Amino acid sequence: MSSLTSTTRPDALPLGLTQGDPAGIGPEIILQAFATQPTRMRGCLVVGDRAVFERAMSWVPLADTPGHRGPAVSLFPVDDPQQALACRPGLIPFMQIGPVGAGCVPLGQVSAAAGRLAADAVTWAARAALHGHLAGIVTAPLNKLALSSAGVPFPGHTELLQAEAAKHMGCRLEDLPVRMMLANDELRTVLVSIHLSLREAIEAVTHEQVLQTLRITHASESRLLGRAPRIGVAGLNPHAGEGGLMGREEIDIIAPAIAAARAEGILASGPHAPDTVFMRARRRPDRDAEFDVVLAMYHDQGLIPVKYLGVEHGVNVTLGLPLVRTSPDHGTAFDLAGTGRADPSSLIQAVHMARALTGETRE
Amino acid sequence: MSSLTSTTRPDALPLGLTQGDPAGIGPEIILQAFATQPTRMRGCLVVGDRAVFERAMSWVPLADTPGHRGPAVSLFPVDDPQQALACRPGLIPFMQIGPVGAGCVPLGQVSAAAGRLAADAVTWAARAALHGHLAGIVTAPLNKLALSSAGVPFPGHTELLQAEAAKHMGCRLEDLPVRMMLANDELRTVLVSIHLSLREAIEAVTHEQVLQTLRITHASESRLLGRAPRIGVAGLNPHAGEGGLMGREEIDIIAPAIAAARAEGILASGPHAPDTVFMRARRRPDRDAEFDVVLAMYHDQGLIPVKYLGVEHGVNVTLGLPLVRTSPDHGTAFDLAGTGRADPSSLIQAVHMARALTGETRE
Repeated sequence: MSSLTSTTRPDALPLGLTQGDPAGIGPEIILQAFATQPTRMRGCLVVGDRAVFERAMSWVPLADTPGHRGPAVSLFPVDDPQQALACRPGLIPFMQIGPVGAGCVPLGQVSAAAGRLAADAVTWAARAALHGHLAGIVTAPLNKLALSSAGVPFPGHTELLQAEAAKHMGCRLEDLPVRMMLANDELRTVLVSIHLSLREAIEAVTHEQVLQTLRITHASESRLLGRAPRIGVAGLNPHAGEGGLMGREEIDIIAPAIAAARAEGILASGPHAPDTVFMRARRRPDRDAEFDVVLAMYHDQGLIPVKYLGVEHGVNVTLGLPLVRTSPDHGTAFDLAGTGRADPSSLIQAVHMARALTGETRE
Repeated sequence: MSSLTSTTRPDALPLGLTQGDPAGIGPEIILQAFATQPTRMRGCLVVGDRAVFERAMSWVPLADTPGHRGPAVSLFPVDDPQQALACRPGLIPFMQIGPVGAGCVPLGQVSAAAGRLAADAVTWAARAALHGHLAGIVTAPLNKLALSSAGVPFPGHTELLQAEAAKHMGCRLEDLPVRMMLANDELRTVLVSIHLSLREAIEAVTHEQVLQTLRITHASESRLLGRAPRIGVAGLNPHAGEGGLMGREEIDIIAPAIAAARAEGILASGPHAPDTVFMRARRRPDRDAEFDVVLAMYHDQGLIPVKYLGVEHGVNVTLGLPLVRTSPDHGTAFDLAGTGRADPSSLIQAVHMARALTGETRE
């Protein structure tokens, strides 16, 4: 990376694509994405162990044979991310992490070696992005148990990226609050909380949490849209509480947080009835949506509508970090690894979304 | 009704269509339904005040003029429901309730007179159905405040129908548990609870409530499908609790209730992750669904996916009653009443669903 400077223009930087757990479907969906969508994948730099990808080529239908969907691809090792931009379609720019072959673990099994490689690839990509050598990162799925087997002190991507970013910025972790956004072509939703029981999620609906989620959403979506986003805020209770008849969180917590956000110039409205706010935010060719993004009060409130039309196109975006990070909205799918049947659509969408977030493509 | 006996074959009975609150959109969507879908509406008997409908004809575009979607219609007063079956398309079989003109209240306003007429129409139709003179009833929306202004001792349709049914059967109200099913062409969901705050809804997830919902769902859907339905049961927590990591209701309550139901021969499975169970139950032309119906643990869990694709085609079905009752999945829309712009689609779907539930049409 020594030949690059952090003053390189953002639109002249590659996207880093981390391979995820080598025992899962990450490597093969990356291969499939390059094989089937070579143009859309141009400018992506794959970060991982190239022996893992060479192995995966034997079961991913990449050759130009009957029934095959795209051209053959081959790896192109680079030692500088910038080289990725000049690669012709059909070549996969590749950055090797650690010794070649260290990631060739048995498929579909949790292993410390796999967790170590997955974490090292993400750490490398995060640092490269924070130093201005990558426009952003797209992370293929990893396995949380493999991470902890490898002694990685973070439960998942988000926490690892938070720690790297805080170190880079010289700030405390708690000063870098992040939120998860789930997005597909029709709908975007940002969650106030994620992996909590429903009882705990209700407790997490506080003035501070809702306001912070509004601020993070406003900042990220403003970058994406080039204007202030219209944020529809869902209520917590049926009918948004119906004036306090079915719960008071809307009156006591959510409405005041919205008012505080509006006072800061954030275009938030609500709280709206949860059962129709997502429908109202749905973008369709024939009808404009009322909101650019919906603030969901808990995990399933936001994820049910995003996933309802099919998980294959969902993208997960981490908001609040000083780097762009997206990921496909699915896991390692250990049961599918090695079959060549895994669907790369969500990964391809994640690449598309990362480009939009870095301003490289307009929406 | 004296000329009818309760031994009349169910497929030779009309459906009762109650007009709802005369200050709302009920009368005009009924007119629109008959005008635009005369064949699908054949065999429906409208129950209400005919002066209300004659008034509505002035603002509903019914005449056979340019831009009009269907033929002109006119009311055909009957004094025996059976006469509705012989009516030719273009005529609306009509059963007058109370004095003609009593329902001609100002549009878009809550009034006791409106509430009284709405309740009387539903009571008449419920009794006719319970006595075997109607195949089932489809209820246009009413206003709860108008009902209470009229001194009606029930908050809404469901409770009124429960009381009529219990009286008819000589049983206690608590022996007639009912559940709400929301359905559209793609998805059906039955709710364990409805109008409770989210905190209260969590408390309502008990072994007894879940098991009872499974039994009611099994009985009703068996009638609809002609076989035991495959019921997908949603969890309460994200990822259905992920083995107790995010809530224990799945382990302590929902799984045992499913096991008890399966021991009774009910084809229930789960608890499934809430964010994907609805997608898995979605019926599409190109793909069979995994479940016929989803059991949702609370109001918004089920209603968000049902409404996501658009409310205009949603139907509300009351399960557990000894009579078939469906309704459109929208309210009185006081702000639209009198504009002629209200959409009759959901009402037409409710008629279609009622016919399917009475076995008159196959699915």
